[in-house]
Amino acid sequence: MKTGRLFVISGPSGAGKGTICQRLASGTGGGEANSPVLSVSATTRAPRPGEKDGVSYHFVTDEEFRGMIDRRDFLEYAEVFGCFYGTPRRTIVRTLEEGRDVLLEIDVQGALQVKRNYPESILVFVLPPSIRDLKKRIEGRGSESAAQIAKRVGEATREIAEIGAYDYAVVNDDIAKTVAEIKEIMGGRHARMADGEAREIIARFNADAMGLG
Amino acid sequence: MKTGRLFVISGPSGAGKGTICQRLASGTGGGEANSPVLSVSATTRAPRPGEKDGVSYHFVTDEEFRGMIDRRDFLEYAEVFGCFYGTPRRTIVRTLEEGRDVLLEIDVQGALQVKRNYPESILVFVLPPSIRDLKKRIEGRGSESAAQIAKRVGEATREIAEIGAYDYAVVNDDIAKTVAEIKEIMGGRHARMADGEAREIIARFNADAMGLG
Repeated sequence: MKTGRLFVISGPSGAGKGTICQRLASGTGGGEANSPVLSVSATTRAPRPGEKDGVSYHFVTDEEFRGMIDRRDFLEYAEVFGCFYGTPRRTIVRTLEEGRDVLLEIDVQGALQVKRNYPESILVFVLPPSIRDLKKRIEGRGSESAAQIAKRVGEATREIAEIGAYDYAVVNDDIAKTVAEIKEIMGGRHARMADGEAREIIARFNADAMGLG
Repeated sequence: MKTGRLFVISGPSGAGKGTICQRLASGTGGGEANSPVLSVSATTRAPRPGEKDGVSYHFVTDEEFRGMIDRRDFLEYAEVFGCFYGTPRRTIVRTLEEGRDVLLEIDVQGALQVKRNYPESILVFVLPPSIRDLKKRIEGRGSESAAQIAKRVGEATREIAEIGAYDYAVVNDDIAKTVAEIKEIMGGRHARMADGEAREIIARFNADAMGLG
C-alpha cells in the first residue's frame, strides 16, 4: 500500500485556508475513505466552551508539551501569548502510514518550519486575488480596528514574499474552484514517484519477467 | 495567461498509451477548450490510405526533414526502416504559448530524448499491471509471432528500467481510472509554480500593497 502525503495548506490570514481545509477534509465530492485527515495541533492553552480534546486540539500540560519538544515530536511549534501550539509528528506519520493523506492548515512561518523538519511535505500557498481583496475580506469580518487591518495587510505582503519555498500556488477567487484545484494537486501527487519507488517498480517487473521465463 | 505544459505519455508497447492519449485529447468529461492538443509527428514515410497530412502526420520530404534537423526543430527524431519520424518543437511551443497543454505519445527512448531537449516536459510512464498481463495483451492482438512477443516482453522490461527518469508512474489496469488519474496529474501541474513564477507573484502583490498605501 502507498503511504499518504502531507499537504500543508498555508497563506496569509483572510485568504480562506480554513474553509478550504474543512471542505477538503469533509470529503464532499470524494469517497469518505479517501478524504484527507485534518492534523490536530497540541496546545497548552485551556479548552474553550465546546472545544473537544482530540478534535479541536490535543490539550496538554506545559510539562507534556515540553516533553514532546525534547523528544522532537513536533514538526513545528510556536508560543503565542504565553501558550504553546505545535504540530505533532507522530500522529501525522501514523496516518500517512495507513495510506491516508494529511492536511495541515498553518501560517506561513509554521509551514516553512514543517518543510525543514519534514521535506517530503507538499506546500500549497493560498493567495487572495489581490491585497485590496484581502483587505476587504478582513474588514468584512468586522472584528478588527483599522490599525489591526493595516498590520495584517503588511504581514500578508511579507508572507507572500516566502512563496518561493512553496510547491504550489492557488488563487482563491472562488472557493469551489480552489477546493477542486487542490483536490487535483492532491490526486496528481499520488502518481508522482517518491524516492526509491522507481527502483521498487523495476525490481517488481524484473521478477515478473523472470517468472515468465 | 499561463503557458501550457508538455505531457509526455510513454511506456512499453501494449501498455495502452495510445488509447489513453486519444481519450485525453477528445476531452470527454472536460471542456473542449481545455482539452490537451495531441502532438503530430513529422515523417518522411508515404501517407497510407486514409491518412491526412497534418492530422495523422506532417508528411515531409527527406530534404525538408534534414532541414528541420539542421535547424534543431525536433525535440526528438528517429529512423525506422529507412523512414524518419520526429517531434517538431515549433508547433508544440506555439500551442503551449497559446496556454494549451500538449500531449505527446512516444516510446521510452523518444521520451528520454524529449526530456533532454525540453527539460520542462512532464514525463508520465504508463505501466501494465504486470509483464504477464502485457504479454496477454500483445497476444490478444493476434498480429505477432511467439518470437516477436518474446522480444517485446524483453523490450518492455528494459524500458521499465528507465522509469527513474520519469516524473509520474500510473498502472493501467483500468482505462477509465488511468485517464482520470492522468487528468489529475495534468490539472495539478497548473498550480505548480514554474521557475521565476514566485518572483512574479511577489512583485505583483508588492505593487498591489503599494497602491493601497
